Amino acid sequence: MRPSGRNLSEMRSISIETNVTKHAEGSCLIKMGDTHVLCTATIEDRAPSFLKGSGLGWVTAEYGMLPRATNTRNRREAAAGKQSGRTQEIQRLIGRSLRAGIDRVALGERQIVVDCDVIQADGGTRCASITGGWVALRLAVNKLLKTGVCTSDPLIDHVAALSCGIYAGQPVCDLDYAEDSEAGTDGNFIMTGSGKLIEVQMSAEGATFSRDQMNELLDLAEAGVRELVAAQKAATE
Amino acid sequence: MRPSGRNLSEMRSISIETNVTKHAEGSCLIKMGDTHVLCTATIEDRAPSFLKGSGLGWVTAEYGMLPRATNTRNRREAAAGKQSGRTQEIQRLIGRSLRAGIDRVALGERQIVVDCDVIQADGGTRCASITGGWVALRLAVNKLLKTGVCTSDPLIDHVAALSCGIYAGQPVCDLDYAEDSEAGTDGNFIMTGSGKLIEVQMSAEGATFSRDQMNELLDLAEAGVRELVAAQKAATE
Amino acid sequence: MRPSGRNLSEMRSISIETNVTKHAEGSCLIKMGDTHVLCTATIEDRAPSFLKGSGLGWVTAEYGMLPRATNTRNRREAAAGKQSGRTQEIQRLIGRSLRAGIDRVALGERQIVVDCDVIQADGGTRCASITGGWVALRLAVNKLLKTGVCTSDPLIDHVAALSCGIYAGQPVCDLDYAEDSEAGTDGNFIMTGSGKLIEVQMSAEGATFSRDQMNELLDLAEAGVRELVAAQKAATE
Amino acid sequence: MRPSGRNLSEMRSISIETNVTKHAEGSCLIKMGDTHVLCTATIEDRAPSFLKGSGLGWVTAEYGMLPRATNTRNRREAAAGKQSGRTQEIQRLIGRSLRAGIDRVALGERQIVVDCDVIQADGGTRCASITGGWVALRLAVNKLLKTGVCTSDPLIDHVAALSCGIYAGQPVCDLDYAEDSEAGTDGNFIMTGSGKLIEVQMSAEGATFSRDQMNELLDLAEAGVRELVAAQKAATE
Amino acid sequence: MRPSGRNLSEMRSISIETNVTKHAEGSCLIKMGDTHVLCTATIEDRAPSFLKGSGLGWVTAEYGMLPRATNTRNRREAAAGKQSGRTQEIQRLIGRSLRAGIDRVALGERQIVVDCDVIQADGGTRCASITGGWVALRLAVNKLLKTGVCTSDPLIDHVAALSCGIYAGQPVCDLDYAEDSEAGTDGNFIMTGSGKLIEVQMSAEGATFSRDQMNELLDLAEAGVRELVAAQKAATE
Amino acid sequence: MRPSGRNLSEMRSISIETNVTKHAEGSCLIKMGDTHVLCTATIEDRAPSFLKGSGLGWVTAEYGMLPRATNTRNRREAAAGKQSGRTQEIQRLIGRSLRAGIDRVALGERQIVVDCDVIQADGGTRCASITGGWVALRLAVNKLLKTGVCTSDPLIDHVAALSCGIYAGQPVCDLDYAEDSEAGTDGNFIMTGSGKLIEVQMSAEGATFSRDQMNELLDLAEAGVRELVAAQKAATE
Repeated sequence: MRPSGRNLSEMRSISIETNVTKHAEGSCLIKMGDTHVLCTATIEDRAPSFLKGSGLGWVTAEYGMLPRATNTRNRREAAAGKQSGRTQEIQRLIGRSLRAGIDRVALGERQIVVDCDVIQADGGTRCASITGGWVALRLAVNKLLKTGVCTSDPLIDHVAALSCGIYAGQPVCDLDYAEDSEAGTDGNFIMTGSGKLIEVQMSAEGATFSRDQMNELLDLAEAGVRELVAAQKAATE
Repeated sequence: MRPSGRNLSEMRSISIETNVTKHAEGSCLIKMGDTHVLCTATIEDRAPSFLKGSGLGWVTAEYGMLPRATNTRNRREAAAGKQSGRTQEIQRLIGRSLRAGIDRVALGERQIVVDCDVIQADGGTRCASITGGWVALRLAVNKLLKTGVCTSDPLIDHVAALSCGIYAGQPVCDLDYAEDSEAGTDGNFIMTGSGKLIEVQMSAEGATFSRDQMNELLDLAEAGVRELVAAQKAATE
Repeated sequence: MRPSGRNLSEMRSISIETNVTKHAEGSCLIKMGDTHVLCTATIEDRAPSFLKGSGLGWVTAEYGMLPRATNTRNRREAAAGKQSGRTQEIQRLIGRSLRAGIDRVALGERQIVVDCDVIQADGGTRCASITGGWVALRLAVNKLLKTGVCTSDPLIDHVAALSCGIYAGQPVCDLDYAEDSEAGTDGNFIMTGSGKLIEVQMSAEGATFSRDQMNELLDLAEAGVRELVAAQKAATE
Repeated sequence: MRPSGRNLSEMRSISIETNVTKHAEGSCLIKMGDTHVLCTATIEDRAPSFLKGSGLGWVTAEYGMLPRATNTRNRREAAAGKQSGRTQEIQRLIGRSLRAGIDRVALGERQIVVDCDVIQADGGTRCASITGGWVALRLAVNKLLKTGVCTSDPLIDHVAALSCGIYAGQPVCDLDYAEDSEAGTDGNFIMTGSGKLIEVQMSAEGATFSRDQMNELLDLAEAGVRELVAAQKAATE
Repeated sequence: MRPSGRNLSEMRSISIETNVTKHAEGSCLIKMGDTHVLCTATIEDRAPSFLKGSGLGWVTAEYGMLPRATNTRNRREAAAGKQSGRTQEIQRLIGRSLRAGIDRVALGERQIVVDCDVIQADGGTRCASITGGWVALRLAVNKLLKTGVCTSDPLIDHVAALSCGIYAGQPVCDLDYAEDSEAGTDGNFIMTGSGKLIEVQMSAEGATFSRDQMNELLDLAEAGVRELVAAQKAATE
Repeated sequence: MRPSGRNLSEMRSISIETNVTKHAEGSCLIKMGDTHVLCTATIEDRAPSFLKGSGLGWVTAEYGMLPRATNTRNRREAAAGKQSGRTQEIQRLIGRSLRAGIDRVALGERQIVVDCDVIQADGGTRCASITGGWVALRLAVNKLLKTGVCTSDPLIDHVAALSCGIYAGQPVCDLDYAEDSEAGTDGNFIMTGSGKLIEVQMSAEGATFSRDQMNELLDLAEAGVRELVAAQKAATE
C-alpha cells in the first residue's frame, strides 16, 4: 500500500556515517532512505551575550537545503536574501530539541552550533536533522570531555525524531516525500533515549484528526525512535 | 497556586467585541484576560497565483505585535527590516489552522487575509489570534453570503485554540505570561467546534514530558475550547 | 459643502482615552473622528550613543499603520522588509515636533520612545499622532517626576498638530480622508500650547497656492490647535 | 555677522552649467556657492504602472550624495543596503515640486526621471537639486518638443527653491552649512516663476517661531527665488 | 618544501564521482585532495528574460560554502541576508567560464543552472567548482541529447581550472589552503580541453610579480589542466 | 578600423584634475576620453578592527556609478537595496590594487578609503578608478607627511591600470565602450610605476584566447601604463 512497499510500521534504512569532514569538532552524514543530511557541530568558546556571566552553555542549530536537494530546484536562500519562514521554524525546532538533552551547567559558558544541511531530500529532513544533529553534538562533546574542558558529561540523554502520519487512511511510520505530500495528518515526534517526549507537532493541513489517531501515531513513533537511538549508539560508541 | 489565583482548569475572562474597525470586511477585538488582539479579515478578489484557474480559495494570516504590547519594548519589525522567525512561525500556524475550517471549493477562487495584531500581550497571543481570527473570518464570510458571492457557506466549522501547560508541577489551562515564562512544558491545542484536533504543538524547553501529562493537557484543552467556541457563537450569532 | 457636513472651521470630535495599555509608562488612544491612533511612551534608561556623556535627553518616535487601518489593505511593512519613505518621513516629523516641547537638560540622559500606531485611518494620522503622542509623553514624564528621577518638569509646553487645506476652493480645518484626497493644497501645522509654531508643512500636489491662502490656513490651524490643547489638558490634568 | 560675510538677504553666487554629460537627455551642474549638484533628466517611454492607459505623464526624482561630498565621509547608501529616511524625504520633495510645474496631459504617458547627485555639499542641497533639476527637466522637454513627441510644452512654469532661516536672531537668505547647523529655525520655500508657492517647510529643531518670523523668511525667499529663476532662464534660453 | 610534501608541479589526488544525487539532471562530487565540492546541473525550460525569442541558451552558476566547510565556522550567507562579494565574484566566474564551452545556438532557448556547493574546503574551491561543474553540465547535456531535445552537442569543449602560485619563492601547482594563505602571488587559470585560455586571473596581495613568473605559472597550469581534462573524460565517458 | 579612429596602440586623451572637492584629504577628476571618474581619498584615524593593535594600516575602496553615467539609465544601487556583484568585484579589485603600492607599516594603524564614483562612463571605468584613485591616495598621503603623522612615505610606487583587448581580430589598447562591448577577449592590467604586474585579469566571454594574444596585450598594456604613470606624475608633482 505504501509507495515504497514498506509495511505500516517499517522505517527506511538508517545509515549514520561519522567524522565526514575534517574541520568540524563533530560531524556525520545521516541517511534515512533517500533523505541525506550533513550535520556538523562547532564548539565556540563564547556563549551568546544573553548568557554572559551565567555559567550556562547553549546549543543552537541552523538548517539549510542545497538548491537541488529537491526534485525541482529551489531558490538558494542566500541569493533570495533571507531564510524562509519554513527554514527558521525548522532550525528553531532543532535547537530547542537538542537543548532538551543538554545539562547546560555541565556544558559551561560556551556554545555549540549544529549545522544541518540537506544534501538530498525525500521527506523527513527536520527529523533526520535532529537525529543526526545529536550524533554530531555527541562527537563534539566527546572532545570537550577528552580534553578536560568539561569534567562531567553535558549530554544527559539521546534525542531523536521521527515523522509519522495518516496515509491513505492508515497510520504509517517514517513518511517519505511521496507519503508526506499526500498525508492529511502528520506529526513530528521528538523524544529522548529514555522514551520521554520533548516535542510533539501534529498538524492536519485542510483536515482534522482524533485523539485515537494521535495515539496510534505516538505508538509508531515510540517504536521508531527506539530504532533511531540504537543507530545513534552504534555510530558513536 | 497560580499567580492569578485561578483554579487549575479556569480560563481567563473572554471578551470578543465585533466590528471594531469601519474598513475591514470582518473584525473583532478579542481579550483573553490582559491579552488583547485586534483581528481583521480582508476579502481579496484574487487567489494567490499558485491557485490560478483551480477554482479553490485560500485563507492566509499575518501576525504582528505593537512595540509596547509587552512589558519591555520590543523592536518594531518594520524597522528591523524583517519579521522574526517567531512571527513567521506564528502566522503560518494561524493560517494553517483557519484553513482547516474552510471549504475551499465553496469559498471560490478568492483569498481572505486575516491580520492579527497584538495590542497588549499577557501570554497566549497566538491562540487568541486563532480564536479571534476565526470570528473576523466568520463576519467576512457572512458578507460573501449576504451579497450572494458565495452560495453555500465556506466556513464548515469553528476553529479555536488554547494553550495549556505544566506549571509548578500541575497541569493548568490558558497560561498567562507569568505561567508561560515558568512552565517547563506547554502546548498549543487548535481544535474545531466539533472537538476534532487540527494541530497540537507540545514543547518542553530544557525538559521532557510523558504521554500521561500530554493527555491531561489535552483534557484541559478540550474543555477550554468548548468555552471559546461558545464565546465565538455568542459574538457572531 | 464638506463631505461630512462640517462647517469650514469645524473640527471632528476629539476623544483622548488615557492609560489604555498596562505595560507602557504612558499611553492613550486618540480619536479624531474616525482616525484612531494608539500612542505609547516608553522610558529607556539610556540615551542614544551620540549623546553619551552629554547629560542631555532625547525623544524619538516611531509610526506604523495596521494593514487594514485603511479602506483597502496596505501591505505590512514588516513583511515588505522596510519602512516606506512616507512612514519614515512621518516618524521623523513626530519626533522632531515632540522634541520642541522638551527641556532636554531637565529630562537628563535618557530616551523616551513614542510609538504611534494607527488602528483606523481617516486622514490626519500624522497630526493625531503628534497630539496623542504628546499625551503619552506627558503621562510618562509624570512618572519620572513622581518617582523623583526628574526634579524639574522636562515638558515645557504642549505640542499639538492639525491639518488644514483648500477643499473645493475653500479653506477648511481638520481634513478627513475624503477631503485630503481631493485637496490641491494642504498643510500640517504643529504648534505649542502658547501658540508658537514648531513646524509648518504646506504642499500642493500638482498645484500652487498664494500667501493669502497660507495665512487663511494658519488662522484656522491656530484656532483648532487651541481646541486640541484643551483636550490634552482635560485628558491629563 | 554671517560666517561668509554675506548681507542678510545676499544669495551665494549661482552657476548653472548645462549639458555636462553626454548621455542624459537633459543635464546641468548647479553650484550655489560650495554646494554642487549634478542633475540629469532621463526620458522613459513608459509611465509608471499606476498611470497605464491614463494618457498622463509623470515626473519623479532620486537624490544621492557622494560619500565624501561632506566634511566627514558619510556611509555610501548602496553599501548600507538602503536609502536613509532623509534621502527618501528629499527625493519625494524634489519629485513633488517638479510635478507642480508640469502639464501631465501635454507630457503624455511617459516618465521623466530627474537624478540629483550631490558632488559637494555646503548646505541647501535639496533646494539646489530642485532648481537644477528643473533645468535638466527643461532641457529634456526641449528634446521632446524638437522631435515632435510633444506638440505643446508640458513645462508650464519655472520651479525653484531656496532655504532661509533665523541665524543669530536674524532672518537670512540661502543658508550655507555653517548657518544651517546653527539655525534654530529654517525653511525650504519652493515657488514657481510667477511667484506662487508650491511647498513650504518650516521647522524649528528644539525651538519655535512666530508668524512674523515666518513672513520675514517668506519675503526673503520670494526675492531669492526671483534671482534663481533668472539664472534658470539665462542657462536655458 | 611544500606543506603537503608534493613536488612543485604535483597536483593533489583528483576524484570525480558522478550521479551523486537522485534529483539533478547532472551531478558529481569532485575532490581535489581535501577540497570537496558537490556540483549539480539543473535544466530549466526557459532562458532568462533577456534572451526571450533569441533562440539562444544560457548557462549560469551559483556557489555556496557550508558553514563548517572551513577550519573555523563561517557565517551562513542565508542568515546574513546576502551573498558576500567574494561569493558573487566566484559564481560569476564559474558561469562565465562554463559558457565558453557552450554552443548557445545548439543548446536552444533554455537555461542550465550549475550549483557548486563546497562541502569541505582546502583551497582552490573556485577552480574545483569549474572543473566539477563542467562534469555536471556534461551529464545534463547528455540527457538533452539522449531525449532528442538537442540534436547536436551544445558542449563544444572541456572547461577546467587550476590555481597556481608563487609559494616560498617557487612556482607551485594546485595550491592548497596552507599554500594559498601564504602565497604572495597566485592565479586562477581556466582553459579548454584543446589548451586555449578562457580566463586568467593573477593577483598579488601586497606584492607584485613579473612576466617571467607569470609564464612559469602558465606552464604549470597548462600541464595541470591536461590532467584535469583527463579526469573529466574518465568520469563521463 | 577602431570606432574612434585611434591607432591600435593609441590611448584616449588623459586628463587628471586634482583637488576638485574642498572636503576630501585627496581628490581628482580623471578623464580617459569620455570616461570621467571622481576619486576622493578619506583618512580615517582607525584601522579596521581585524588590524587592531597590529600597527599596520589599510587602504580600501568603494565604487559607484551615477544612474545616468551610462547611455541608458541604470538603477541606483541605494534604491535597489544592494550593490551588484559587478560593483563589489570592482571595488575589491581597486582596493587590492592600491594596497600593492602601500607600505602598511609606514602608513601606521589608520585607514584610507578611496571612493571612485563614475560621473560619465565610456568603458574602462575600473581602470580609470585605479589610476585616479592612486592620485587621490597620493594627495592624501602627502597631507600625512606634511603634518608629520607619517614620517616615511607609505606610498612605495605608482599603481595604474589599463584595459586592452582583441577587437575585430586585432590587439588594441585602452578599450572604449564601443570596443569593449564587441571584444571577444579583453583584459585589465594593473601595474606599478616600475613596470611590475599587480593583477592581470583576462577574460573571453563566449570565446578563448592564446598565450600569444595574451602577450600582445601585455605589451600594449606595459606601454600604456607608462603613459598613465607619467600623467600621474604630472598631476601630483
